[in-house]
Amino acid sequence: MNKTGRTKYYILMEIMKQAILNGTIKAGEKLLSENELAKKYEVSRHTVRRALSLLIEEGYVTAQQGRGNFCIDRFQIEKTKRILLLVREKESVAVQHLLLGMKKELFRSGYELLIESTDNNVEKERYFIQKALDRKIDGLIIEPSKSEIVCSHQQLYETLRYYGIPYLFIQGVYPGMRNQDCILKDDYQAGYLATRYLIRQGHKKIVGIFSSDDHQGIEQHKGYVKALEKVGISYHPEFIIWFHEEDRWKKPWIGVEELLKNNVPVEGIICQTDRIARELMKNLEIIGKKIPEDISIIGNDLVEGKQKNLTMIFYHQQEIGEKVATILLHKIENKRTETVDMIIPPKLIIGRTTKKRIL
Amino acid sequence: MNKTGRTKYYILMEIMKQAILNGTIKAGEKLLSENELAKKYEVSRHTVRRALSLLIEEGYVTAQQGRGNFCIDRFQIEKTKRILLLVREKESVAVQHLLLGMKKELFRSGYELLIESTDNNVEKERYFIQKALDRKIDGLIIEPSKSEIVCSHQQLYETLRYYGIPYLFIQGVYPGMRNQDCILKDDYQAGYLATRYLIRQGHKKIVGIFSSDDHQGIEQHKGYVKALEKVGISYHPEFIIWFHEEDRWKKPWIGVEELLKNNVPVEGIICQTDRIARELMKNLEIIGKKIPEDISIIGNDLVEGKQKNLTMIFYHQQEIGEKVATILLHKIENKRTETVDMIIPPKLIIGRTTKKRIL
Repeated sequence: MNKTGRTKYYILMEIMKQAILNGTIKAGEKLLSENELAKKYEVSRHTVRRALSLLIEEGYVTAQQGRGNFCIDRFQIEKTKRILLLVREKESVAVQHLLLGMKKELFRSGYELLIESTDNNVEKERYFIQKALDRKIDGLIIEPSKSEIVCSHQQLYETLRYYGIPYLFIQGVYPGMRNQDCILKDDYQAGYLATRYLIRQGHKKIVGIFSSDDHQGIEQHKGYVKALEKVGISYHPEFIIWFHEEDRWKKPWIGVEELLKNNVPVEGIICQTDRIARELMKNLEIIGKKIPEDISIIGNDLVEGKQKNLTMIFYHQQEIGEKVATILLHKIENKRTETVDMIIPPKLIIGRTTKKRIL
Repeated sequence: MNKTGRTKYYILMEIMKQAILNGTIKAGEKLLSENELAKKYEVSRHTVRRALSLLIEEGYVTAQQGRGNFCIDRFQIEKTKRILLLVREKESVAVQHLLLGMKKELFRSGYELLIESTDNNVEKERYFIQKALDRKIDGLIIEPSKSEIVCSHQQLYETLRYYGIPYLFIQGVYPGMRNQDCILKDDYQAGYLATRYLIRQGHKKIVGIFSSDDHQGIEQHKGYVKALEKVGISYHPEFIIWFHEEDRWKKPWIGVEELLKNNVPVEGIICQTDRIARELMKNLEIIGKKIPEDISIIGNDLVEGKQKNLTMIFYHQQEIGEKVATILLHKIENKRTETVDMIIPPKLIIGRTTKKRIL
């Protein structure tokens, strides 16, 4: 390590990255061999290998089996007409609706759409973005994984920008990356609407079940607090059940069960997803609670209708899909250069899981 | 799979576990060979192997290289006089203080203390508890990993209970396991004291930085809310910065920076650890904010004094260590059988990072 605290391989990586950025190493060009690089920069082959692996990881260089290392060629003039959609779960109903909207726009313009699932796993997201750089796509749409947690591969997004590949965040965005192009659901409004509805139906003891590691949960919680504040109901943090990706199927019920065991007179429960709502209703039924007579349940989800009769907040995904596709195409064709920051309002549908309380 | 939805190997595992629990298979006894078990239960060897691996995982059976599988022998009459302390980070100053208190008690009674770090990793915690079952310990003290997330290896704790090995949670406890023996810090009170102190010093716009995946953060947040409520300052969820294990070094500053960029007049910041406080002060200094003239900073930690001059909430770890050791020894020697649920109050030390605001 030198006195700036950087290792030799890190410094070499920076030198080579600079050479790529200023065009000394050309797009698509074959790099010197490991031995040649070691000689040129007076470092060991081990150092060269570590520097190269960083460059590969960040998407500046691609290793081709038996042929050597190449500077990635992103400056082809002709477009590939391929777009990648990276979502948490590609089989979900919400994504199917989103696709309906997107495809209409994309196919009209002759674009092909590739879809991959990250399973809400940050490492998979990183992997697919790296792969996307090799596959030469024209644009990228990402539903970020664990979007309340600071992005660990911000560098890869910088690489995308460097190569002029537009990308668009949907559903959520990483903290500190809000200045990027994004089309977000108005989760604040979703939390607000759900809570206000229950309050207007005479509920006061309202439990909120929110995810603490995605943007959606954090924002819905803010809307929940706002709705209480507006009518002067005081906020009780005990009424909030925070769940995490790891315990999302267990924590909501453990939290509700604990409140009921402590004789908290829960009147309504706002669930971040309809699956949580469904699980809760099953468990509440087992212990003899009636929905909506004893407790009202309200769900939140990307689309309506997965859980019949559930009172819920949802979004019109097909419309979102159309917007996403149109904006990305404009970005690709340089028809739109300013940053996009669009907020989609939620809708409320009233089912049979909520009921007016007599005060 | 049969009609109850359980696989063959799962059913076999349950049958064998039952045989161990009711004494048909004796403690320390060698099990039948895989072939013999396959014949006896009319299943394939593959099924036997999967059932055995579950039993090994849950600590009922131990595999001895070249000798076969044995039912774990936990009923030896003589004690091993060994205790395992499982903490997140064994080199931490807090653990050193805790040890000072524990060792005094343990050595007096002739006990040996083994210490392992989980690095706040649930899988490591599971691994060390499994290993502990083989090493034949008399008792276990655990600082749980990610203690706000539902425990994924609850079964292992049940195995410990079955073998009559007392265990004690310290610092935090998993949701749904609060009925277990535990000695907890009063994190609620810590959040309350810190916030009340800042309020009394004339602060109103108080930012709280809390961890959303440990018990400590969730409880401190509750105390923070209570302190605001008592004096009628309304709660703004925007003032809470939730961080996670994964982004604990980045998120606090990203959150504070965003608030300042949006011209929120932050007057005080409560940090869950002194390391976060230190990092924040460094970054605030870079952008020209003076501590405590512009912003007061208050820390929370297990022990005092790691950060000189920092106003902070801390606990007397040495005293906790003494209590932990005494209680565990009583449990081991059956002098104390009722469940222990002890709460340790925090202390406030006033340093030079907070200052009275003129209203």
